[in-house]
Amino acid sequence: MSITRRKFITKVAQYGGSACAAMLALKLLDSSIAGAFSLSGSGKGKRVIILGAGTAGMAAAYELGKVGYDCQILEARNRAGGRCWTVRRGDEETEVGGTRQVAGFEPGLYFNPGPARIPQHHITLNYCKEFGIPIEVFTNLNEAAYYYNESAGSLASKRVRIREAKADMRGHTSELLAKAIHQDELDLAITSEDKEKMVEFLRREGDLSPDLFYKGSSRRGYSTFPGASLEPGPGKREDPFDLKALIQSGFGNYFSSEYSIDQQMTMFEPVGGIDQIAKAFEQRLSDKITYGAEVKEIRKTANGVRITYADRTGRLRQVTGDFCICTIPLPVLKGIPSDLSPQLKEAIAGVTYAQTGKSGLQFARRFWEDDDRIFGGITRTNLNITQIFYPSHNYYAKKGILVGHYNFEEKAVEMGNLAPAARIERALYEGSKIHPQYPKEFETGFAVAWHKIRYSLGGWASYTSTTRERYYPTLNQPDGPIYLAGEHLSYLTGWIAGALESAQKVATAIHRQVLSGT
Amino acid sequence: MSITRRKFITKVAQYGGSACAAMLALKLLDSSIAGAFSLSGSGKGKRVIILGAGTAGMAAAYELGKVGYDCQILEARNRAGGRCWTVRRGDEETEVGGTRQVAGFEPGLYFNPGPARIPQHHITLNYCKEFGIPIEVFTNLNEAAYYYNESAGSLASKRVRIREAKADMRGHTSELLAKAIHQDELDLAITSEDKEKMVEFLRREGDLSPDLFYKGSSRRGYSTFPGASLEPGPGKREDPFDLKALIQSGFGNYFSSEYSIDQQMTMFEPVGGIDQIAKAFEQRLSDKITYGAEVKEIRKTANGVRITYADRTGRLRQVTGDFCICTIPLPVLKGIPSDLSPQLKEAIAGVTYAQTGKSGLQFARRFWEDDDRIFGGITRTNLNITQIFYPSHNYYAKKGILVGHYNFEEKAVEMGNLAPAARIERALYEGSKIHPQYPKEFETGFAVAWHKIRYSLGGWASYTSTTRERYYPTLNQPDGPIYLAGEHLSYLTGWIAGALESAQKVATAIHRQVLSGT
Repeated sequence: MSITRRKFITKVAQYGGSACAAMLALKLLDSSIAGAFSLSGSGKGKRVIILGAGTAGMAAAYELGKVGYDCQILEARNRAGGRCWTVRRGDEETEVGGTRQVAGFEPGLYFNPGPARIPQHHITLNYCKEFGIPIEVFTNLNEAAYYYNESAGSLASKRVRIREAKADMRGHTSELLAKAIHQDELDLAITSEDKEKMVEFLRREGDLSPDLFYKGSSRRGYSTFPGASLEPGPGKREDPFDLKALIQSGFGNYFSSEYSIDQQMTMFEPVGGIDQIAKAFEQRLSDKITYGAEVKEIRKTANGVRITYADRTGRLRQVTGDFCICTIPLPVLKGIPSDLSPQLKEAIAGVTYAQTGKSGLQFARRFWEDDDRIFGGITRTNLNITQIFYPSHNYYAKKGILVGHYNFEEKAVEMGNLAPAARIERALYEGSKIHPQYPKEFETGFAVAWHKIRYSLGGWASYTSTTRERYYPTLNQPDGPIYLAGEHLSYLTGWIAGALESAQKVATAIHRQVLSGT
Repeated sequence: MSITRRKFITKVAQYGGSACAAMLALKLLDSSIAGAFSLSGSGKGKRVIILGAGTAGMAAAYELGKVGYDCQILEARNRAGGRCWTVRRGDEETEVGGTRQVAGFEPGLYFNPGPARIPQHHITLNYCKEFGIPIEVFTNLNEAAYYYNESAGSLASKRVRIREAKADMRGHTSELLAKAIHQDELDLAITSEDKEKMVEFLRREGDLSPDLFYKGSSRRGYSTFPGASLEPGPGKREDPFDLKALIQSGFGNYFSSEYSIDQQMTMFEPVGGIDQIAKAFEQRLSDKITYGAEVKEIRKTANGVRITYADRTGRLRQVTGDFCICTIPLPVLKGIPSDLSPQLKEAIAGVTYAQTGKSGLQFARRFWEDDDRIFGGITRTNLNITQIFYPSHNYYAKKGILVGHYNFEEKAVEMGNLAPAARIERALYEGSKIHPQYPKEFETGFAVAWHKIRYSLGGWASYTSTTRERYYPTLNQPDGPIYLAGEHLSYLTGWIAGALESAQKVATAIHRQVLSGT
């Protein structure tokens, strides 16, 4: 047998035909998140100078190029991608005022110091699909990873599996609420039948006993896992943590890090490194990118723009165009002489960028998989390192690279003030409190402080509600022939998606202007 | 720079050397879940007849074979793997009293009618590693999938994103509990400082306003997602569902399906189908398996066992051995004449098996990815189909196979009573209430009712606490030279892990007996 589509459609009537009504009633398409982008009409004869071969600059060149624009991208670095960057053996970086770092990773291993993950609703996935970039699941959430806080209470400086903290916190809070509802202590505007349903929900949610007590749960795992035959039998459980210990540990405050829309499962990563996205654009733009071109001046002319840049030899060169798309991060842009309006210059200087750092640590053995049974996911801690990421690829391989720290603001500044080698030492020292295998298995590392990385000077635009209101509208207004683009011109700051959305918006705006002939 | 291990160890003292203390204090290894299995000593000269080339039977033969046992496996089917089965184009199945089904799937597409996922703590992963079977993440949890219930209340017969239901339910329950604690309505044996911490936790957990109200959250998603420039701007949200509607919908009762230890992320699947595990064993046992061998009699002899089976032609044949490992599912075993003890026969007859069914539906277009932005995960419903699984592999491919239903007990019996083609129609009819794209995109399907599958007659051993207490110890006692093995001889019933753990246990027991010479 093999039922065909035609057969199904003719048979549906048997069940009352209401599938058709359902088809009409339901929205078939979340158009705002699924639409493919394309410009129509021609931009032939128009020249666009794009500053920066990051994902925003390249996406703009790619989309404008499709409809005939002549684009030239000036890129200060000797590589494309900007923050969409993957570090492999031999790659090097010298931070502002810093020492030279050369990656000593094993061939085949890599580290994404910048963005690393893609939510499933992102425009980023659309480009991966268009370019045929293979993707794999980024395990942003792993219940087997740890929490570790130097805090108050009996859980201080103890590593605890996420599943233990979650099961116990859910258990205790569900018990409290279920009892309060059951004993009618809350003023709930629902029927007693619905109250019973609510209590039943909480009983499941917390794995409570019939009399609404939380007495621990297999959800938190076992000290001896269930097996076969009579030994080890049904599994041996530990007692739950008490509510007081959990509250004092602060672990509960980590739960919500997985709740925000951009951190929810399913998440993805490109197979082989985040820079596969940058490389896919770069391949399609190979003759349009000038590398080692550091922008020195941005000037308006009678009919467009004139950009002065220093080439690899330091020699000053000039290019002209009808339009300019400037994707240079604002902390860098504010230091470049230009004809931009005073109002725009004030906005450029007014937006703060995130201070953030990350390290990649190569280990001789994937002890987190072999010993701890942690495959992907994130350990969270209030130590300076803030997070440890376990790789979401090459499971079982002999070696692997962990993200040894990923921290922000004060912690990132403190870590960033150290030389790269000392950052690695700090990440190893702190990480070994959670993974004592660190000293024995560590081989080599690479550490980045984004606020000290040349041509970036920050992780991403970090708007406050004030700067968003005061400066964002100005930044989004073209200044004559000059348009700003990048993650900082979006509500998805820090995400490749923000850069891509911005590129599409600016490409559309320029194209609209060209087509209207104004 | 590249800090070496030696340098790190010498530098650690700078921070007070407490990493070493930490190393000692922490357990390095969860030995109960990470240990590799191996027998030592020789079983040369001993012959073991194994009934069933499922994962239990093959794992036993594989481990015993490593130490010299002469194993022969009798397998009733013309393939190995048993319930560890992947259906591809041309595969066929005729259920007990049923019509012949032949899979018409596109080459390269497949459907796992039985087990499909592997938790990260499982022995199953160890064998995948040993055999070099590539694994990929099984996205057991996807916040973008749907809930759909024909229930009471204003959410009845509406499809709702999981993230909407979760964010709103967490919001409302956190609001209730936070207010009760803040207003000191609960009798909590914690300090007022800890109460404040608890309220702060609930504020984050529920995304509550500073005055502890839940007013909706971006966690539930957007009707228009945030973008770049000024349009579409920061994203447009919908109002949250009210508590009454949520309670009446019953959606909250689905949350905990992701909480049990065996359903928590990270989960895996072998690349290319679950049967890659069976095939890996099979390759290593190719000369030891007799296919098409239906066991007719299990007899004890003076020195061992004598098994009578019908070969492919129906001709009766006999084999003898020193031991027998019988992995035949109990509902099948109870119909086979044998010398098993009356007590064991009573136990075999006393254990009920799960009634469960699954279908694979091939669609011409991956509308769930393109239109709905659902990459992997599970939609849950109180319709007969119970669940829809989205594939965790070949993202972006042109076509794909959904699990169109995966149901249990009454629902599985009702569905199983239909002919396979009618099951597919039912799955399509019900599924199209959630995915109206079904009728347009459907191509072909394959449906299994495990309780009607020959040589299985059920999904897995479904113990009650009574049958576990009454029969399980007896089933685990060898009856002379005859040992039972399989998922039903474990506390991991329904999981390949249970079969593998049982195989190791029985192999160990036989080997111990041989070595002790008794």
